[in-house]
Amino acid sequence: MKALVFHGPGESAWEDVADPGLQDATDAIVRVDTTTICGTDLHILKGDVPEVPPGTVLGHEAVGEVVEIGSDVRTVRPGDRVLVSCITACGRCRFCRDGAYGQCLGGGGWILGHLINGAQAEYVRVPHADLSVHLLPGAVDSKDAVLLADIFPTAYEVGVLNGCVRPGDTVAVVGAGPIGLAAIVAAQLYSPERIIAVDLAPTRLDAAKRLGADAVVDAMEEPELLVADLTEGLGADVVVEAVGVPESFEACLRMVRPGGRVANVGVHGKPVTLHLEELWIKNVTITTGLVDTYSTPILLRMMAAGRLPGSSLVTHIFQLEQMEEAYDVFSRAADTGAIKVVLGGQPHDVVSVRAA
Amino acid sequence: MKALVFHGPGESAWEDVADPGLQDATDAIVRVDTTTICGTDLHILKGDVPEVPPGTVLGHEAVGEVVEIGSDVRTVRPGDRVLVSCITACGRCRFCRDGAYGQCLGGGGWILGHLINGAQAEYVRVPHADLSVHLLPGAVDSKDAVLLADIFPTAYEVGVLNGCVRPGDTVAVVGAGPIGLAAIVAAQLYSPERIIAVDLAPTRLDAAKRLGADAVVDAMEEPELLVADLTEGLGADVVVEAVGVPESFEACLRMVRPGGRVANVGVHGKPVTLHLEELWIKNVTITTGLVDTYSTPILLRMMAAGRLPGSSLVTHIFQLEQMEEAYDVFSRAADTGAIKVVLGGQPHDVVSVRAA
Repeated sequence: MKALVFHGPGESAWEDVADPGLQDATDAIVRVDTTTICGTDLHILKGDVPEVPPGTVLGHEAVGEVVEIGSDVRTVRPGDRVLVSCITACGRCRFCRDGAYGQCLGGGGWILGHLINGAQAEYVRVPHADLSVHLLPGAVDSKDAVLLADIFPTAYEVGVLNGCVRPGDTVAVVGAGPIGLAAIVAAQLYSPERIIAVDLAPTRLDAAKRLGADAVVDAMEEPELLVADLTEGLGADVVVEAVGVPESFEACLRMVRPGGRVANVGVHGKPVTLHLEELWIKNVTITTGLVDTYSTPILLRMMAAGRLPGSSLVTHIFQLEQMEEAYDVFSRAADTGAIKVVLGGQPHDVVSVRAA
Repeated sequence: MKALVFHGPGESAWEDVADPGLQDATDAIVRVDTTTICGTDLHILKGDVPEVPPGTVLGHEAVGEVVEIGSDVRTVRPGDRVLVSCITACGRCRFCRDGAYGQCLGGGGWILGHLINGAQAEYVRVPHADLSVHLLPGAVDSKDAVLLADIFPTAYEVGVLNGCVRPGDTVAVVGAGPIGLAAIVAAQLYSPERIIAVDLAPTRLDAAKRLGADAVVDAMEEPELLVADLTEGLGADVVVEAVGVPESFEACLRMVRPGGRVANVGVHGKPVTLHLEELWIKNVTITTGLVDTYSTPILLRMMAAGRLPGSSLVTHIFQLEQMEEAYDVFSRAADTGAIKVVLGGQPHDVVSVRAA
């Protein structure tokens, strides 16, 4: 089959690799209809995630059809249309029993396109299939559903729920890429007073407005001043970090009010400076997190009911074999206006960024 | 009157100052019977809290008798025996209405011995008296009660409650000074499986054992290895930082399990390095906090009922006029074995550190 193979920092190719086969009785093999590229994949290519071995097929998000299952798989069967979640889960370990699937000790967690071959491929082997794929209702389009493999549960769990967004809150979202935009969408489920989006790219700030941000501000223009202006000088109740560089994380801590929360969602490759000499007295809570995907079934039901705008984040659609072109477009988002690129069975169709 | 006056980093003296008088209708004047020295006072003397102006009377913990009240004070009257809390609260601002008294926007918060003259004095003016002093039940001894002015509510709210200690948890307490020891006591209210105390001083580790720590470890001996040994390699569920230097904070992050919590209680004077390149994926929660003292009434009731060991933390008792000697003994704790020093009306009586 064809797959996108990582060959060390800065190097990858869409090339022939061996088809995956069942290795364990709990595995499923899924034929990938639709996949996407995550900011995390770009972090891997930058070298920020050094545990990814060269030779690994990247990708941890897919929609497809089950074509083969191991003897212990009970919840899906060949022919089922499924969402392949970015998190696989044994369901039996201490962390899985606590709903902390992302930290699974039984050989799960985020392993696809990380520690084992992933989903940017024609076929993918999914370990622990019972808890790692989700049957898809017919009403959910693949381009919508694939956004539930990672970005929506990540934005919801690691951003909105870790951040404890409450009605009436002022929420700042730093980084209006796919995860930040999904956080802007998900935060609205909790009726905040206002959402302020921070980014460098005008196209992303436009998208943030379109998706419900009440105010937007250029990251270079001291966004903490706007946040202070809007909050009687106090700062935001909740700040979501959705970039993954020290500057953005440190900016988040300048934007949060006393007693507020900073929910880090970004994938970081470097240490940051934490100004505890100012923060010790401010009652600030900082959370970090890999998604657990405990919310995926709920988000799927909400999407099936039309309560979550999925493909409104999708700016570009490619065919699977256009993987390298899709990476190029996604990695040059500032030039191309790419937000979420989806690769699927559809004909090549570049969707223009929708106007505000 | 006499008071302990801060004269800039490293400089203080027990000297004559003007008696405090009422300035606002919500003030009370309290004659100090009992006070104590806080690790925070040593941080101020080190220069870690630069907003304290030279000339300030230090101290934010006292038990005494109300001698004068402003016309708007309703809850206490002259002759009442009261606890003077480290936090004063207007009761009307946004944060006070949310129980976040430490962040009071109405001229309260931690101001005693910080932004205004404090309680290491014969008399202290307490603003916003209605919400800033607590009537003392007769059953509570002054040496016990004075520990409720700061260290017990701080250890309980900022350590145990922010850390969300739960039954069965492994709790590591880094720093077994007065706050750390109070955290060891308070954590037991939530029935953790084990408490591990970390410190450099054998006398403090002995005190930790006496007060309920299940294991103790020298801070120089890679305590994260003991914590890992006791937790199947995972780390502690909750780590309480009760020191206030970068090394101890960073050690806490090496001791916490995925999904665990680090509750910072220490007063920090320098930035720390936060290894987000390792932590982003670990679902760690970090909290900081100045105490709010919302728990003080509850802790007072528990102490009156004999449910909190108060003066078991007290190693040295001085008279008020022995303030400079008390500072000397407290600041050389490694040599003197001092844990909590109390200054009160009692005759000079150095209590020896109790044996385990």
